Amino acid sequence: MLLEKLRLEVYQANMALPELGLVSFTWGNVSGYDAQSQLFVIKPSGLSYEQLTPANLVVLDLSGNVVEGELKPSTDAPTHAYLYQHFSGIGGITHTHSSWAVAYAAAGLDVPVVSTTHADTFFGDVPCVPTLTAKELTENYEQNTGKAIVRTFAERGINHLTTSAALMAQHGPFTWGKDAGESVYHAKVLEVTAEITHRAMQLTHADIHLPQHLLDKHYQRKHGKTAYYGQA
Amino acid sequence: MLLEKLRLEVYQANMALPELGLVSFTWGNVSGYDAQSQLFVIKPSGLSYEQLTPANLVVLDLSGNVVEGELKPSTDAPTHAYLYQHFSGIGGITHTHSSWAVAYAAAGLDVPVVSTTHADTFFGDVPCVPTLTAKELTENYEQNTGKAIVRTFAERGINHLTTSAALMAQHGPFTWGKDAGESVYHAKVLEVTAEITHRAMQLTHADIHLPQHLLDKHYQRKHGKTAYYGQA
Amino acid sequence: MLLEKLRLEVYQANMALPELGLVSFTWGNVSGYDAQSQLFVIKPSGLSYEQLTPANLVVLDLSGNVVEGELKPSTDAPTHAYLYQHFSGIGGITHTHSSWAVAYAAAGLDVPVVSTTHADTFFGDVPCVPTLTAKELTENYEQNTGKAIVRTFAERGINHLTTSAALMAQHGPFTWGKDAGESVYHAKVLEVTAEITHRAMQLTHADIHLPQHLLDKHYQRKHGKTAYYGQA
Amino acid sequence: MLLEKLRLEVYQANMALPELGLVSFTWGNVSGYDAQSQLFVIKPSGLSYEQLTPANLVVLDLSGNVVEGELKPSTDAPTHAYLYQHFSGIGGITHTHSSWAVAYAAAGLDVPVVSTTHADTFFGDVPCVPTLTAKELTENYEQNTGKAIVRTFAERGINHLTTSAALMAQHGPFTWGKDAGESVYHAKVLEVTAEITHRAMQLTHADIHLPQHLLDKHYQRKHGKTAYYGQA
Repeated sequence: MLLEKLRLEVYQANMALPELGLVSFTWGNVSGYDAQSQLFVIKPSGLSYEQLTPANLVVLDLSGNVVEGELKPSTDAPTHAYLYQHFSGIGGITHTHSSWAVAYAAAGLDVPVVSTTHADTFFGDVPCVPTLTAKELTENYEQNTGKAIVRTFAERGINHLTTSAALMAQHGPFTWGKDAGESVYHAKVLEVTAEITHRAMQLTHADIHLPQHLLDKHYQRKHGKTAYYGQA
Repeated sequence: MLLEKLRLEVYQANMALPELGLVSFTWGNVSGYDAQSQLFVIKPSGLSYEQLTPANLVVLDLSGNVVEGELKPSTDAPTHAYLYQHFSGIGGITHTHSSWAVAYAAAGLDVPVVSTTHADTFFGDVPCVPTLTAKELTENYEQNTGKAIVRTFAERGINHLTTSAALMAQHGPFTWGKDAGESVYHAKVLEVTAEITHRAMQLTHADIHLPQHLLDKHYQRKHGKTAYYGQA
Repeated sequence: MLLEKLRLEVYQANMALPELGLVSFTWGNVSGYDAQSQLFVIKPSGLSYEQLTPANLVVLDLSGNVVEGELKPSTDAPTHAYLYQHFSGIGGITHTHSSWAVAYAAAGLDVPVVSTTHADTFFGDVPCVPTLTAKELTENYEQNTGKAIVRTFAERGINHLTTSAALMAQHGPFTWGKDAGESVYHAKVLEVTAEITHRAMQLTHADIHLPQHLLDKHYQRKHGKTAYYGQA
Repeated sequence: MLLEKLRLEVYQANMALPELGLVSFTWGNVSGYDAQSQLFVIKPSGLSYEQLTPANLVVLDLSGNVVEGELKPSTDAPTHAYLYQHFSGIGGITHTHSSWAVAYAAAGLDVPVVSTTHADTFFGDVPCVPTLTAKELTENYEQNTGKAIVRTFAERGINHLTTSAALMAQHGPFTWGKDAGESVYHAKVLEVTAEITHRAMQLTHADIHLPQHLLDKHYQRKHGKTAYYGQA
């Protein structure tokens, strides 16, 4: 069986979604990418978390062909494939319908960075990617979702390695990271920061974005050469 | 004992209500319908979920007569009977007082379709059925509730097979499906989408309904001939 | 030991508060009343639910004297005593700091009856009792709390047997019932209806009170001679 | 090993954070102070609660030097050190990112005292400390956080022994108490009162601060010479 270690990681990352309260039913999927073989492992479509095993995950190449697996892959697999091709350096992707993040997506709004809880993980507002056109929806919907995310990051000059999350307008969150587990971590952080931000925005109509120096400080306390948080 | 297989399904569907966080105390009921015998099986009135067994469920005909059972059926049984008679092709019905859905019912508002989480299951806004008149309330209240739901769907041209949920104004949600289990699934989806929509509506006063092409795409990804979600 | 059966009921009713999510720490108390002996049993002050036993509950007479018990009774005991003296026919009282109900108390607002979830249990708005004066607070605070509740019901013509709940403004809910267990049930219903009503009031500024005929129908479906809900 | 009894208290206090729903992942830390040795014990930086033991806690002096421990202390240790030096009589400090409190911090607002739930523990509004300047953030950020808290209490004339909590604007809550356990208790009270207050503030735009006599009564019912709540 291909990629046994990666299968285990992706299995554990998928199972973390219900544990972290990020999914109802089967409404979420996690994948992990192996840069050497250029293959990724993803949850089968519509399978319950109770039925999931490392062995029934599906292995695909970046063109979306199933390389190993009896089951159909997540319908979102072409989104994952496109992101692995165009967001260099990522090794895992998570998609959920977690409710605070979806509320921002439904409203068509970025999640602004209004607290250090957000700044510790995402180096700026989490962007809301505009709804696809009718044409983009009809053909290759899921691949076009990936294209729209990549295009929005390019147009708005957002670095996908420091802001590793996006909202598809009227749909929901996609997050990514260096591996499957980190992409799930980012999905939870996004949900928590959306919750906090929603509550803060009910208390005030002021612009409460962090000043740049506070954003810099908190992000850099946890990331890069100047990081000093944690034991590493 | 009649309808043993259906009894088990209806029992399990009722027990899923507290597991899914959809009821407090005894504030919910699920029934399942057997098209061949034209009988349905429903939860007894006011019985706690701890006391419920497949054997103490109540079997009724579509006129509301108890065919088998020691206990009184749910007071909502005439609503269920009316819906089985007039909504062709349904095999299960759920009623709860889940709080996000009841909030929309209390406000007298439809739950608008503002995200794909909604569109994946309900093909349009979930309608709020106007409060019954004093006369409708006094005589045959529960049957008149069923009539009002059916009338609203007819008047507004809503297809009950693709929008399998309604809110009774100032009361709460009714959902249905091909069997008891699916009706519970729809009750949970309605609660989740009401929660998301409520939160989105606190963030913006814009009309954030899905465009038709996005609604079509997501509903049809999971339903009908063009469906490609899941393993079936 | 006095009142062993009542002690067990009051113990179980107190233990239901954390199970139903109605209290943090020790912020709640339940008592039960024995009409024959004119004594009531109440939780000791500040004792954790883990330490509570039927035996360490405190027995008081209606003047507030401890008749049996090593521990100090709840500081709210004089409120309970006053209500037992002046609200005829009640046998149990619950006080909590549950957060949706306290939000209404903090805002100084009644919980209006906007859904059948409320009407099934409380026959009208749950009144908010005005904050005590400085004088009422300084002397016999807890007894004066009971007096203010009874006075508000009298002034507003509310029947304490059909609307068995009140909010003390800027403080929190008191509920009562035929016994300790029913008073806890009413505490949970009040919390749920406050939650629903709060959410409905974020969706609309319209007056969404139930019409009288719907309030009558639902309350009487569960109470009095015309009741037909449940197995009794 | 130094301070074995204090290590156990601080360990238990840290473990209470996830039990009380106050932290996600590693986003919180508790310390305890030994006045005799002028040393404090704190959680290691970024360590998961599953990995935490009394033995791997870190012991520091008030200058921030590690006196005992293999792991790096919490990055917030200099904030704790500063508060121990300048807030006389405290023996424990807690920092979390609990979401209702952070919402107030993000909005830059005090948590006003609008209910007795708040007044039972904090003798007035919980102040929001203004965001640090760019200069304060760049050098000795964590120590400057402590300085800003102490300065705000001095400038606003707030007694840190009766209002034992602060919000750092755009960041989150710090609470303290006579020992580690009490500081965690205060962290939970702050979260609950922020939740209640947020909900009350959605219901009304009136000034709903407690009158002074009600604040006095409730605070003094639980604290000081006139206290009569509890068994002590």
